[in-house]
Amino acid sequence: MREVFQQELADVQDRLVEIAGLVELAITQATTAFNSSDVSLAEAVIADDHRIDELAASLDELAIDILARQQPVARDLRIVVSALRISASLERMGDLAEHIAQLARTRFPEKVVPKDLRPTFKELGRLDVLIAGKLKRLLESESAELAEEIRDDDDLVDDLHLSVFDKVLGETWKGGASDIVDSTLASRYHERFADHAVSIAKKVQYLQTGDWVVAAH
Amino acid sequence: MREVFQQELADVQDRLVEIAGLVELAITQATTAFNSSDVSLAEAVIADDHRIDELAASLDELAIDILARQQPVARDLRIVVSALRISASLERMGDLAEHIAQLARTRFPEKVVPKDLRPTFKELGRLDVLIAGKLKRLLESESAELAEEIRDDDDLVDDLHLSVFDKVLGETWKGGASDIVDSTLASRYHERFADHAVSIAKKVQYLQTGDWVVAAH
Repeated sequence: MREVFQQELADVQDRLVEIAGLVELAITQATTAFNSSDVSLAEAVIADDHRIDELAASLDELAIDILARQQPVARDLRIVVSALRISASLERMGDLAEHIAQLARTRFPEKVVPKDLRPTFKELGRLDVLIAGKLKRLLESESAELAEEIRDDDDLVDDLHLSVFDKVLGETWKGGASDIVDSTLASRYHERFADHAVSIAKKVQYLQTGDWVVAAH
Repeated sequence: MREVFQQELADVQDRLVEIAGLVELAITQATTAFNSSDVSLAEAVIADDHRIDELAASLDELAIDILARQQPVARDLRIVVSALRISASLERMGDLAEHIAQLARTRFPEKVVPKDLRPTFKELGRLDVLIAGKLKRLLESESAELAEEIRDDDDLVDDLHLSVFDKVLGETWKGGASDIVDSTLASRYHERFADHAVSIAKKVQYLQTGDWVVAAH
């Protein structure tokens, strides 16, 4: 029974890693589409998001099934509950990648990113992709170091997010109203994407330390 | 044992209703502060958000404790797992109310809402408050009718959200860059607030019908 349970937990972990891999692909494609106005790549992200949703829903069913059959307690129980929370965050990260792709598609053949902000969004994209890759490896390895790195990378994302507002509100800004709307939304999506990764990293960390309450949200 | 369990489920439900009541208060105060530039009301929302966070974290601990001690199966298990998900959405709705209050505070003593958009944001605020009130009653009563109403109200919120973009991108728009940034963010926060209510309403509905997978996200 115990052995079956450990096998099932390993299956849950494998599935989380698989979903994180799809999220990494989605944000890689979405930020590339966004920064290079590649509408077919944007379409691919939008078309593929349902796969993340389906895998997350199927993982949730497995986790609930494990709760019902194995009736885990203590740390084992918290691992299964965490998997449910992590899957919800991954699913949301997929949505945010899709939103970034939708901005690229809506504006096509125009460029979404105003010239002044191209380096900023390139760096925001690079960081979100980096964070997604680290998140996948964190779910594989549960490395405390990776969790710390994700939190540091998120601080950089937050700074860049604020700098977008400084730029569009600055005196040298030359963009129009639609540039401001797109940049505001796009920056927010990039920031929330990283936030969810931090939220997952905290859950993995606190599972290890046992200090659970703080990690609940 | 069964009686104790039913009592505990009733306790979980009471706590969800209590948190929903605080969320209703937060969005009522936040949208009032936002629309009337009332900075002290905005401060109150920001200062009180930790109560929602704490109650949600404490409810999560109770739910996990119930899973460990009562080891529910079938529908009972799904009710407890749903409570965990609903609490996460309520906590997020509190954050979004806080974000709306923060916009009012940041811009003070200026008005956040540009003149052209005042009727739109008043209506967005009214709908979010209405939805929060219905959500609280839904969690009390599990009325299928209220769940449907919340979904319909959310459609109106989505339409208004899109109309904000039409307005700021329209030819008659007179606001500056900071008006566009604030309006874009504020509109997004109002829209996400309603989305979370719909997500909770779906969970309550599907708990009744048993068609769970669709409601997972």
